[in-house]
Parts: sequence; structure tokens; C-alpha cells
Amino acid sequence: MENALNTQKFHLGAQTSLRILTIATTMAATWLMMTSKEIAIVYGLPFEAKYSYVSAFKFFSYANAIACGFTAVSLLFLFIFGRKGLTPSWFFILFLHDLCMFSLVLSGVAAATAIGLVGRYGNSHAGWMPICDNMSKFCKRVTISSAFGYCSVILLLLLSIMAASKSRQIKV
Amino acid sequence: MENALNTQKFHLGAQTSLRILTIATTMAATWLMMTSKEIAIVYGLPFEAKYSYVSAFKFFSYANAIACGFTAVSLLFLFIFGRKGLTPSWFFILFLHDLCMFSLVLSGVAAATAIGLVGRYGNSHAGWMPICDNMSKFCKRVTISSAFGYCSVILLLLLSIMAASKSRQIKV
Repeated sequence: MENALNTQKFHLGAQTSLRILTIATTMAATWLMMTSKEIAIVYGLPFEAKYSYVSAFKFFSYANAIACGFTAVSLLFLFIFGRKGLTPSWFFILFLHDLCMFSLVLSGVAAATAIGLVGRYGNSHAGWMPICDNMSKFCKRVTISSAFGYCSVILLLLLSIMAASKSRQIKV
Repeated sequence: MENALNTQKFHLGAQTSLRILTIATTMAATWLMMTSKEIAIVYGLPFEAKYSYVSAFKFFSYANAIACGFTAVSLLFLFIFGRKGLTPSWFFILFLHDLCMFSLVLSGVAAATAIGLVGRYGNSHAGWMPICDNMSKFCKRVTISSAFGYCSVILLLLLSIMAASKSRQIKV
């Protein structure tokens, strides 16, 4: 009985830590992307780079913001009901929630990475020039934001697998 | 007992159908993307569009090809061991497999969509011109390929949730 209680406490601690970390990484990713802006002078003309000019970056920001909000709600839910021990059915609902957030952030990160690579290296076949040579501050910020996005993806994947695994067990 | 047997038969049927559909959609997505090629004359100069010129399209193709192969293996596994009834632990392994394939195809589709949107509408802020006005055949093929990719994502999501759900039940 004591062993089961210890396992439950450990699991609750791991869930709480991972969710707090996810909130932090998604918040950082959103903030860094949404505040990335740079004005550069190219051939005497002013050029402005802003996250909202690229639909993939907008989607990335919204995806991370939504995941941040929903993960905060799930943490609150865990705080209120978790102490008494959740039933496997509740963990299955939590799994569905985490899977949705994982899918959302993963698609945002993949889209942002695809565009970020064109921004850095360009595409000579399509005639798309790289912009990072002139917009290094903007590109650096987007890269760090994407890195936080990748961390969120890993954390949400872990949370999904943990919730799916816990939904298989009998209430302790 | 008969009811449980019927449920098992129904579930095995659903699993088989969904996996065959996934193999078909991922194969179609890979084939359509890998054979998309067009040469157009723009301002008197020949321009060639090919999937391998864009890293996101290459990643999309490989992701779909890998998912196609692994889903075929999982179908074979289901054929060999499924008739006797799989244990919940086997379903949990199947869930992990489906989740990996889902993540892979989803990131491929998101990356391809992000680049596809730039190809269709361009990005005036970055100076990236749309290419679909001159490469309509290539763009149409990529769009249909992406549509198959989206179908694969939905199918793999369903398979993941089904496997996670079945991993919670006692062997029937």
C-alpha cells in the first residue's frame, strides 16, 4: 500500500514537472517568435522582417500559445483531482488532450523549420533568396524559438505516452 | 463469449482495413510527390521543378515511404498474431509504432504544406515569388500528394487512438 502511494506521488511529481516545463517552453517559443522583428537596409532600401509576414511562423506561434494555455488547464486539473488518484479513464482523456497538443505543436514546428531553412539557405531552383545574411538577429530569434518548440514536442510526446501508459493501470 | 469473439473480429477487421488504407494513401502520396516534375519556359529561359529540389518535399516523400513500409510490417504482424487475440501489451507496442508513424507523416505534411503555400502565393516581404503560375502541373501534383498525406495523418491518428484504447482492455 505504501509502495503504491509512493509510486502515485512520484508519478504526480513527474506529471507536474513535465507540464510546468511544457508551459515554460511553449511560452518561450511563442514570446520569442511573436517579438522577432528586424529592419535592415539592403541596397539602400529598408526591409522589415516580422513573424506575422510568414503564415508558418504565425501558425507556430498560435500553436504554441494554444498548447501553453491548454497545458496550464491540464495542470490545474491535475492539482485539483490528482491528489485523490485519477482513474484510468481520466488518464485516457488526459492522453487524448496531450496527443492533440503534441500534434498541434509538432505541425507548427515542422512548418516553421521548413520555412526557416528556406530563409537561411534559400532555394536557387525556385529563385528564393536567403534572407538570413541581412536579417541575422531575426533569424537567430526564430531559431531559438524553434528550439523551444522542439523541446515542447519532446515533452508533449513524453506526456502522451505517460498518460496512455497510466490509462492502462488500475487506480492506486 | 460469442459477443467478445464478435467484438474481436470487428476490431481485427477495422484494424486491417485502416492499415490497408494507410498503406494505399502513403504509397500514393510518395509516388505522386516523387514523380512530380515539370519544365516550363519563363521569359525564354527553361525552368525545371522537381520534388528533390525542395528539402521539405524530399522529407515528405521519405516520411510517407517509411510509414508505408512500417504499416505493411504491422499489418503482417496483425495477420500472423491477431487471429489468436493480442494481449494489451502487444497493443501498447502497436500504439507506440502508430504514434511514431503519425508523428513522422504529420511533420512531413506540415513542412510540405508550408513550402507549398509559398510556392502558390509567394512571400512579397521576403521577395519569394510564387512559382505555381508557371508550374501548374507540378503544383497540382504536389497538392494531390499532400491531400493523400493528410488522409494518412487522419488514418494514423485513428490507429494510434484505437491501439491505445485496446491496450487498456483485458485480452478477449
